[in-house]
Amino acid sequence: MELIHGGDWAGFEMEYGTRPLDFSACISPLGLPEGARRAALEALADAERYPDPQCRALRQALAAHHGVPADSIVCGGGAADLIWRLCRTLRPRKAALFVPGFAEYERALAFEDCEIVRLPLPGDFRLTADAAALVPPDTELLFVCNPHNPTGLLAEQSALLSLLERCRARGMTLAVDECFLDFCADPAKHSLVGALAGTPELVILKAFTKTYAMAGLRLGYALCGRAALAERLCGCGQPWPVSVPAQAAGTAALQDECYVNQLRALVTAERRRLIRALEALGLRVIPGEANFLLFYAGDPNLADALRARGILLRDCRNFDGLTAGWYRTAVRTEEENDRLLTALREVLHG
Amino acid sequence: MELIHGGDWAGFEMEYGTRPLDFSACISPLGLPEGARRAALEALADAERYPDPQCRALRQALAAHHGVPADSIVCGGGAADLIWRLCRTLRPRKAALFVPGFAEYERALAFEDCEIVRLPLPGDFRLTADAAALVPPDTELLFVCNPHNPTGLLAEQSALLSLLERCRARGMTLAVDECFLDFCADPAKHSLVGALAGTPELVILKAFTKTYAMAGLRLGYALCGRAALAERLCGCGQPWPVSVPAQAAGTAALQDECYVNQLRALVTAERRRLIRALEALGLRVIPGEANFLLFYAGDPNLADALRARGILLRDCRNFDGLTAGWYRTAVRTEEENDRLLTALREVLHG
Repeated sequence: MELIHGGDWAGFEMEYGTRPLDFSACISPLGLPEGARRAALEALADAERYPDPQCRALRQALAAHHGVPADSIVCGGGAADLIWRLCRTLRPRKAALFVPGFAEYERALAFEDCEIVRLPLPGDFRLTADAAALVPPDTELLFVCNPHNPTGLLAEQSALLSLLERCRARGMTLAVDECFLDFCADPAKHSLVGALAGTPELVILKAFTKTYAMAGLRLGYALCGRAALAERLCGCGQPWPVSVPAQAAGTAALQDECYVNQLRALVTAERRRLIRALEALGLRVIPGEANFLLFYAGDPNLADALRARGILLRDCRNFDGLTAGWYRTAVRTEEENDRLLTALREVLHG
Repeated sequence: MELIHGGDWAGFEMEYGTRPLDFSACISPLGLPEGARRAALEALADAERYPDPQCRALRQALAAHHGVPADSIVCGGGAADLIWRLCRTLRPRKAALFVPGFAEYERALAFEDCEIVRLPLPGDFRLTADAAALVPPDTELLFVCNPHNPTGLLAEQSALLSLLERCRARGMTLAVDECFLDFCADPAKHSLVGALAGTPELVILKAFTKTYAMAGLRLGYALCGRAALAERLCGCGQPWPVSVPAQAAGTAALQDECYVNQLRALVTAERRRLIRALEALGLRVIPGEANFLLFYAGDPNLADALRARGILLRDCRNFDGLTAGWYRTAVRTEEENDRLLTALREVLHG
């Protein structure tokens, strides 16, 4: 299987025998919350038991956390699992997505022999109400990523409202991927969780992967505007997609109220600093608001040059609508970002 | 989502507030091998990294363990994940399976709008060459479970050879689920791994779940007669189905050569003892050779009565071809089996 995403530390370690500094996957640089790590460790004592297929404790915790009914929540082995389950369940004849965008939407749709309408974002990559108006009327499923991957840009409120209205009017399912929203300054302002109650067509995808640095444990979930869809998503695949340690770690992570605030403060400060520093290096930086930044360097070999220095960067040439020369970097700790900047300076300005 | 399998310890704990003794899931009673537990613990330090989507280290270890090429191996989040991937990849128009049997084959097939041919096993539940002859000629996918679940019976060699011949002759995919084979006395004699090289139509499903007591970590794999099928199985779902701790634990478990021998000795001795004891209680016991036993008690409320005593038993009435009164029990340690027998005696004979 081809590796189309970032985060191939395993390939690096096999080649170099050392651990890379990974800016190609966009994970909380704070690591697992302490309570989550402890819960996962303790849960290993129960590794011989099947996981609860209904993820009852975790879903109760999520219901309280988001203020939504537990029966509208379905948990999976990462958001990617839920993207695949959603496409498999709905089997849309026509689906739309914005490009450049996250490749799994397209992979999962393609497998259902679905007509895929790729809506190009404008030159500044902003999702506006004008862009929203381009969704064909007979679209059955629309993916929106907010903030968008790989740009980090938040959709304009008017665009989201316009899309909500259209999905309600036409019965089109609107899947909003909010996996990176916790890294933004004011998540509540941009989240559509509040619209779930009045919008049976809405599905919000979330993950513990990025916010709580649990990519390796595999834990994501969907909040559904109607419980019937949650049940179908649950029933369209294997019954135990979420491991015992992942359920325990997720439940514990939600109890840590300080972690996300601390994370957001760090990422906000470092993102600002990184934007200025990258621009100072002469790069065109898209002013994203998540824990990653898309930039244009021109040099098609930048990722290779950094890799040789032990740093993984996401080469974005395989994103539909981007070319060689575009890269995405995660926003990490001050010290790590400094190492990235030093390496970039060396490569770009010798 | 309805709970159709055994192992609902979570439901029990929510109701009673205590931990049940679980005979309804069929897991190694020895728990995780020590090396696997240590590897999973250490791997939690890497929980923030995405798992290797190609499971490279684990697949290398499996290739050496089974003596098959690494590119014919695909790993998944438990054997159930691979059952679903197989059905999704092949999308057979007609598939066959033997009943009573494991429900996930049928669930996964039904989702593909496949015609499902249920071949009833004879009265003694033995899969013989005669039973194999009943597979319709236009079957595209056949599931065989060896030893069979819920009976624990091994297929006769002549039946397996006949099925192999038929799948080669007709291009029918033969999926042999060997998840419980390690518990039998002479696995090598009954495994079809040796036939993989000459049979591109063959897929063997295996799991760490039962043999290494890793149900909670989610780790299974498929050995494919052709590498192209392994690649398709890998590409028909999310890219990271196997968590970081599961990959580490699986790789470590394969290095423990004593564990499976010790497990087999324990299970063989306890299975024999349990058969005699259950028969002494007046029950009809199917003489299975795995780590579980199917028996007929008549009493439709036996599982409820045991549950009230803190013991979970698998009520088999929802198996196609079985009725209320049939139960499956795991074979566990001497002390645990004694507790089961004591409770059974109380319930059945006051």
